[in-house]
Amino acid sequence: MKYSLYYWPDIQGRGEYIRLALEDAGADYDDVARRGNGTSAMMRMMEGNRGMPPFAPPFLKAGKLLIGQTANILLYLGARHGLAPKSEAGKLWVHQLQLTIADLVLESHDTHHPLGPSLYYEDQRAPAKKRTDEFWKERVPKYLGYFEGLLKGHGGAYLTGRRITYVDLSMFQVVEGLRYAFPKRMKAFEPEIPGLVELRDRVAARPNIKAYLSSDRRIAFNEDGIFRHYKELDL
Amino acid sequence: MKYSLYYWPDIQGRGEYIRLALEDAGADYDDVARRGNGTSAMMRMMEGNRGMPPFAPPFLKAGKLLIGQTANILLYLGARHGLAPKSEAGKLWVHQLQLTIADLVLESHDTHHPLGPSLYYEDQRAPAKKRTDEFWKERVPKYLGYFEGLLKGHGGAYLTGRRITYVDLSMFQVVEGLRYAFPKRMKAFEPEIPGLVELRDRVAARPNIKAYLSSDRRIAFNEDGIFRHYKELDL
Repeated sequence: MKYSLYYWPDIQGRGEYIRLALEDAGADYDDVARRGNGTSAMMRMMEGNRGMPPFAPPFLKAGKLLIGQTANILLYLGARHGLAPKSEAGKLWVHQLQLTIADLVLESHDTHHPLGPSLYYEDQRAPAKKRTDEFWKERVPKYLGYFEGLLKGHGGAYLTGRRITYVDLSMFQVVEGLRYAFPKRMKAFEPEIPGLVELRDRVAARPNIKAYLSSDRRIAFNEDGIFRHYKELDL
Repeated sequence: MKYSLYYWPDIQGRGEYIRLALEDAGADYDDVARRGNGTSAMMRMMEGNRGMPPFAPPFLKAGKLLIGQTANILLYLGARHGLAPKSEAGKLWVHQLQLTIADLVLESHDTHHPLGPSLYYEDQRAPAKKRTDEFWKERVPKYLGYFEGLLKGHGGAYLTGRRITYVDLSMFQVVEGLRYAFPKRMKAFEPEIPGLVELRDRVAARPNIKAYLSSDRRIAFNEDGIFRHYKELDL
């Protein structure tokens, strides 16, 4: 089955967690909004879809299904592409971790948008500085310390043990994103999370991911996405 | 099976979405942290659980399973207590809506904590005012307009059609929460969402919910929870 992914064409954003899963799985998919008039097609889907419109991108068309919300899409894909355990307990555990990553990703976004997503960064520079300081003082250590602990706890190569899941692919993206947005802060912090840094390298070395990262399907980080580099926040 | 719910004992918070589902289902459960030494028991679970600790409350013990993240717990309970469709498509759709409600709930929280969860409200009053204004100007109309549109779209009594799901119970809580935190703003806004107001009443009238709301198991709203009433934000 060929999937259609609908997401904003110029950013990695939340769509990237889906792209990484599709790419690692070697799945056939169309990144709809990245071709001519694709964004219009995406907007039409959000208005229609037989009374079941998604609230926001990303969403994935899979046969007759149209699935929205990043973690929900991964829940669906994980089961079909060997990126999650088959048992109910395993599925719930991996999904739980993905939802925790989603919380971290949103907090990363809010470092530059503490007053909400509807105002420009330029209109919230001072609160952004404060929120970023708190984020690095309290939240990054708490979140990444938790995931580092999981890795250490079982001695496995991946967050949930010996086998990779979509959560590992997402953690790769989180490490990459924090490195891009906050190179100085992240460099200083990385000695605290040696396991996650190794995990990042392990994911990056996977053949399908490696090929993807060097292709033009991988959009570069930029200041319209979730992880943004503003020098004044990286002090 | 008797469930054990682990959540902070003095607030509704995210635990309330689970409580409402358990109560509506007439499920047997223990609200662990609300009895003597219960909070210590909760903290121990977060440190242990055989290398699979939850990141934060709420979490639910269901036999051998320990399930974290509110929407994930509802995904599990919905399937077992007739609070979600049985088909995969239906399950994913209801979960997608729940995740969208979770986003709205977090944004509601951030109205009083725009600089992050680790600082006091008193240290972020000015940004809280700005974020609250944006929340009511942009975000509440977008989110609640979306859910109102779903109700209108199919003409059913509940968000996904003729049968109640856990999403309807959560929407009840959102309406209650916004009414508590922002009575003036919400009163002015409610004419925009007549369907959701009716849905709130329909949920409140369900026998198990009605009994729950008038019991001492229902914690009152207060200024330690997610929906907080600060007069200066309700202008």
